[in-house]
Amino acid sequence: MNSVAPLPDLSRLCVHTITTKPWPIETSAAKFAAAGVKGITVWRDTLAGRDIAKTGQLLRDHGLAVVSLCRGGFFPATSAEQRAKALDDNRRAIDEAHALGAPHVVLVCGAVPGQSLVESRKQIVDGIAALLPQCAAAGVKLAIEPLHPMYADNRSAVNTLAQANDMVEALRSPQVGVAADVYHLWWDPALESEIARCGRLNALLAFHVCDWRTPTIDLLNDRGLMGEGCIPLRQIRAWVEAAGFRGFNEVEIFSHRFWAMDQDAFLGQIVSAYRQHV
Amino acid sequence: MNSVAPLPDLSRLCVHTITTKPWPIETSAAKFAAAGVKGITVWRDTLAGRDIAKTGQLLRDHGLAVVSLCRGGFFPATSAEQRAKALDDNRRAIDEAHALGAPHVVLVCGAVPGQSLVESRKQIVDGIAALLPQCAAAGVKLAIEPLHPMYADNRSAVNTLAQANDMVEALRSPQVGVAADVYHLWWDPALESEIARCGRLNALLAFHVCDWRTPTIDLLNDRGLMGEGCIPLRQIRAWVEAAGFRGFNEVEIFSHRFWAMDQDAFLGQIVSAYRQHV
Repeated sequence: MNSVAPLPDLSRLCVHTITTKPWPIETSAAKFAAAGVKGITVWRDTLAGRDIAKTGQLLRDHGLAVVSLCRGGFFPATSAEQRAKALDDNRRAIDEAHALGAPHVVLVCGAVPGQSLVESRKQIVDGIAALLPQCAAAGVKLAIEPLHPMYADNRSAVNTLAQANDMVEALRSPQVGVAADVYHLWWDPALESEIARCGRLNALLAFHVCDWRTPTIDLLNDRGLMGEGCIPLRQIRAWVEAAGFRGFNEVEIFSHRFWAMDQDAFLGQIVSAYRQHV
Repeated sequence: MNSVAPLPDLSRLCVHTITTKPWPIETSAAKFAAAGVKGITVWRDTLAGRDIAKTGQLLRDHGLAVVSLCRGGFFPATSAEQRAKALDDNRRAIDEAHALGAPHVVLVCGAVPGQSLVESRKQIVDGIAALLPQCAAAGVKLAIEPLHPMYADNRSAVNTLAQANDMVEALRSPQVGVAADVYHLWWDPALESEIARCGRLNALLAFHVCDWRTPTIDLLNDRGLMGEGCIPLRQIRAWVEAAGFRGFNEVEIFSHRFWAMDQDAFLGQIVSAYRQHV
């Protein structure tokens, strides 16, 4: 499996604020920086009540790169009015990314139980297309994140990297790319070839890591720390790097188990697992 | 969604013994028959301590077709000794299907956390190939069941219908086909075309129905009754029938919720949901 060398240092380590969800963003920033983490991906809930531009400056003052803003998306809905509301929320996300200094917004594209996936996919492409002028003006990209098929009911009708790549091709815009998360994609027999295709499209904007635990006891919040599960992390990183990716390796872990832990200890485990397994 | 007419009657309704798990097989057979169910798929645990040939006769005496035996598979392992043990178990399953009068054994193909999926897939194909002479002699087929990607860690490295079709093509044997279960496959953007391909391969041996609930609270045992979830059942049945399938619609529901219910009442719900939603 170990097809590339271990990472020599932490210079490409990014952690998502949701990974250490109990901490407010100011604490995350200080702790991440102190631990040697070099990038931060900001979840929008952590910005509530803050001056966003000042918060972006605070992060940079800690020496942290602002890697992504999470998240926009959720385009499909059964009424035009709800779809318009979703677009408004995405417009706010783009403004927030611009103010924060984040180069892109990660999209969890959405799905509606009972609405056909074909229709939801059409609404997703239409929704992204509607945002592109604002993206160009703001200098903010949109990263389509394919989600695991177990989220096809109500979170995303985009469930493989092939589908995300197809959308990138259909949208033909330099503002649209892909966020590849090993948790969602590791099982896919087409993963290597689709990562390569994503690279040829110059569309690979983000790379998220964690692990898949056996057994997984919760569909949403039981992700593993790297090395705890069965995902061939180093193999997938090799594919991503062969596709030209040189960005951050972003640690995004939703876990009731880890959120219940002392977050300083957890951050220490993240750094150690990153060195050993990514 | 309703691309085919509702089913005119129960003549193609089959229920899996595991769906009404609290009942011993003799009770299931009597109750299914009394409810108008016409087929039964037998899970091997229900045969423990029984004379299998006599049990098959009992099922037929109730007017039930013996549709499948569940299940064989679990071919991958990290040692040759464990793989040989898995083959032995599959040989017993083929013998049991023959004794019972079931035309095929459904395969949950297996996976090993930490072993590469590529290696597991190779071991699956090798395992199936090793069983083919016995299958031919016994007149029993093997039905590869692609499992949802959320089971790729430890239950199956075969996670799409395309992969199952690829294996059927690679194995080139009239003894090998596919079991298509809507729970595992509904999200797949290639589902319609791969069902058609499976039909062209003359390989579609079984069709399983249930539903996907939102939210799903357990990865294994929270399947929905048809109509409770978001799976476009009638659309998928239309595709399956367009591919030439004329076999049973098999109700396979793993559910702590339903297993805790009065099973007579549950069976009534199954029949009613079958008429309304399949």
